Amino acid sequence: MIESSNGGVEIEFWFDPASSYSYIAAADLAGIEARCGAMFRYRPFLLGPIFAAQGWNDSPFNLYPGKGAYMWRDLGRLCADRKLPLRRPRQFPRNSVLPACVALIGLDHEWGKRFVTALFTANFGHDVDTSSAAGLGEVLRALGIDPEPVLAAAADPGVRARLRASTEEAIRRGIFGAPSFMVGEELFWGTDRLEQAIRHAGAVSALPLSGEHG
Amino acid sequence: MIESSNGGVEIEFWFDPASSYSYIAAADLAGIEARCGAMFRYRPFLLGPIFAAQGWNDSPFNLYPGKGAYMWRDLGRLCADRKLPLRRPRQFPRNSVLPACVALIGLDHEWGKRFVTALFTANFGHDVDTSSAAGLGEVLRALGIDPEPVLAAAADPGVRARLRASTEEAIRRGIFGAPSFMVGEELFWGTDRLEQAIRHAGAVSALPLSGEHG
Repeated sequence: MIESSNGGVEIEFWFDPASSYSYIAAADLAGIEARCGAMFRYRPFLLGPIFAAQGWNDSPFNLYPGKGAYMWRDLGRLCADRKLPLRRPRQFPRNSVLPACVALIGLDHEWGKRFVTALFTANFGHDVDTSSAAGLGEVLRALGIDPEPVLAAAADPGVRARLRASTEEAIRRGIFGAPSFMVGEELFWGTDRLEQAIRHAGAVSALPLSGEHG
Repeated sequence: MIESSNGGVEIEFWFDPASSYSYIAAADLAGIEARCGAMFRYRPFLLGPIFAAQGWNDSPFNLYPGKGAYMWRDLGRLCADRKLPLRRPRQFPRNSVLPACVALIGLDHEWGKRFVTALFTANFGHDVDTSSAAGLGEVLRALGIDPEPVLAAAADPGVRARLRASTEEAIRRGIFGAPSFMVGEELFWGTDRLEQAIRHAGAVSALPLSGEHG
């Protein structure tokens, strides 16, 4: 178990920048961290290879139109409850590779979490093309970050390799959708399980650490 | 809009007897009705034809093993939270036709809701073969109901026709999974949306009924 900066057990937040429900999760997490301090480790990954392994060449929300229509309605209600903006993206899902790489770079610095929140808001709240350098530049500039060196760094093959490794790790650890939360090897799928994940992390951190027994 | 017996707007509870998450929903609903009075209209239907229309010949929890493994783990946590018994059924999903027909008959009488709760507990809590007349007989007897006339009535082609009509109605109204809740034509999918459905029904019933304007 890894301890988070506020002394509790860390919760990993696995997301794909194209995942609609991850927009809700990222907003909820930002609110929780504003009140409680850093609790989550943000883990960008790609759903595409996971869906492809299930025989899906597109988002299940596009492959199964009834489910898709419901998702947008449900997302609308969840956004309304939280007073989050929602404008249905002209393209869904948007390609996640470049925004996920930028997120990885941001998470090496102090602006990663802010960027992730802004990225989801841009994609789902304002229909910005977050798959493109232009759209990502807009998001970064609004955060006061110079896009040029970031986008240059994001094009580095080493960053893509890290993203690929994260996606392989997600598969290995049983992740099949986003958002997903992991507390150790305990998986919680969906924003609806965030509370349970936090409760579980609290129960785990209340136990004596194994090292303390030595 | 239909008003329920306690004066609020009715919430329809759509379930398939084989649906694992409907076990949780049925238990939660029984608890809510015990405190608040009849609020829900129980609507048995069959997921099979809906899944078949999506190209699935089995439960998605069997077709996608990662998702299935997670579902059983998640169900375990949900049952533990509620102190509900859980014994993973040797067969999943169990055929729903006969139990759904018995539920339809029960819902014409006063014992329908009690039967539905007991049916889910038998299937998922005690691994009783609820697809069979023998298993259903066991469930009915435990409720003090003579199984023989009920099972004879359930074999009536008219009851099967009603079940088919309910399934067609579910499809027409956009239902694609179970449990589903409907408040008028507003769809809420999953136990996780029960609270939202209740809130929505409360907001609707707080509005003047259209008939009152006449």
